[in-house]
Amino acid sequence: MTELLSPEALEYALRRIGEERYHNRHPFHKLLHGGKLEFGQVQAWALNRYVYQAAIPRKDAALMANLEDREIRREWIGRIHDHDGLGPDQGGIERWLKLTDGLGLDRAYVMSQQGALPATKFAVEAYVRFAGSRPTLEAIASSLTELFAPAIHAERIAGMLENYSFIDESLVAYFRKRLDQAPRDCRFALAYVKQHARTYEQQKAVIDALVFKTDVLWAQLDSLYFAYVEPALPPPDAFVPAAHPGK
Amino acid sequence: MTELLSPEALEYALRRIGEERYHNRHPFHKLLHGGKLEFGQVQAWALNRYVYQAAIPRKDAALMANLEDREIRREWIGRIHDHDGLGPDQGGIERWLKLTDGLGLDRAYVMSQQGALPATKFAVEAYVRFAGSRPTLEAIASSLTELFAPAIHAERIAGMLENYSFIDESLVAYFRKRLDQAPRDCRFALAYVKQHARTYEQQKAVIDALVFKTDVLWAQLDSLYFAYVEPALPPPDAFVPAAHPGK
Repeated sequence: MTELLSPEALEYALRRIGEERYHNRHPFHKLLHGGKLEFGQVQAWALNRYVYQAAIPRKDAALMANLEDREIRREWIGRIHDHDGLGPDQGGIERWLKLTDGLGLDRAYVMSQQGALPATKFAVEAYVRFAGSRPTLEAIASSLTELFAPAIHAERIAGMLENYSFIDESLVAYFRKRLDQAPRDCRFALAYVKQHARTYEQQKAVIDALVFKTDVLWAQLDSLYFAYVEPALPPPDAFVPAAHPGK
Repeated sequence: MTELLSPEALEYALRRIGEERYHNRHPFHKLLHGGKLEFGQVQAWALNRYVYQAAIPRKDAALMANLEDREIRREWIGRIHDHDGLGPDQGGIERWLKLTDGLGLDRAYVMSQQGALPATKFAVEAYVRFAGSRPTLEAIASSLTELFAPAIHAERIAGMLENYSFIDESLVAYFRKRLDQAPRDCRFALAYVKQHARTYEQQKAVIDALVFKTDVLWAQLDSLYFAYVEPALPPPDAFVPAAHPGK
């Protein structure tokens, strides 16, 4: 961008970032959704993605620690409820663990994060720190990958159910739930950003924040691809898939 | 303390801190509860204390940003619900604003915090930062002034209703509610601290954290006393009570 945008033009610019940089375009996801991965590679993906899922409530709490407006906190806290659960609902992290359970991964091992790739942890912690240290406008903007998430979730549900015998409906509960949650959340975040990014510098910062977030997601798949697809060299202590009869 | 304590002895040491340093012992509170303050001085107290109330959810979010254990987050988030409200419940901050409303203070002025004492804001922000930057054990320990809060709330309710014609039941709703909430919260926090402070260094850090918190509360009353009781010199831009027919 080179000049101040209207709110609508800003939304268009943000959506363009998704078209160019969202991780649905990453070769790892094309393999995953197209049924081209072995069982152990899907395990590695779910194990590493757990690190991200588990950190989201901390990311949202870090953002909330800077939110002086009670009404916005009352809105934003719903994201923590979504992932940690509230009352009887056990939330999205528990649904993710249902996926890793179903993939035959030991739950304590998954939760320990000991087998996750260091690059995954670095990317995730960068996101948590971003949310807690940047201005609220940028922290909120970094959540806007949710604009692009429903399409990838729908593609993932269909692709994984169709292509992998070891994936059934119970394992994709996380993604089904996100089909409802993510659009609700990103409507608020998008409206906030369109309303509050009123200078060129703010709009530039908002765009950079979303680019940063797409980098956080993309970098996780780069490291997964390197470790488990090609050249398939997991670093020391990282998860190593056991031999498995097939997909 | 000079040696490792049993969990019970640690609890005793923590309770002793309350007996020696909790702000119920501060001369400002003795004046407040004893009916010795003018209307404008009670206004100044409620206006400044709002700064503290409004920051508590940010403090708890800052603490939660470091909580890696989902079960503990699911417990701790209840504190944010208490103060911000959840769903139809508008929470403790709104109940505090009912008090400042009832004391004739303009709500937008109160919420702007423009009339609050700088020393109040500094103390409150020190608490928010402490909760977000210290180890979780210390951050949780700093909440333990709740062990001592029910007594001061009960004393405050009785003393203010009895002594001030401008205080009625509707204005003390915040304190009535805290009579239930604070004991529930501090049971969890006390059990956590007793379980996790297992070295001398940890126990010392826990005790220091609670002392720090009593300092945060005490410092607010020192500055109130200076500004509005004796010598009664509010700093530039601070709230100045209007003349009022009496208490």
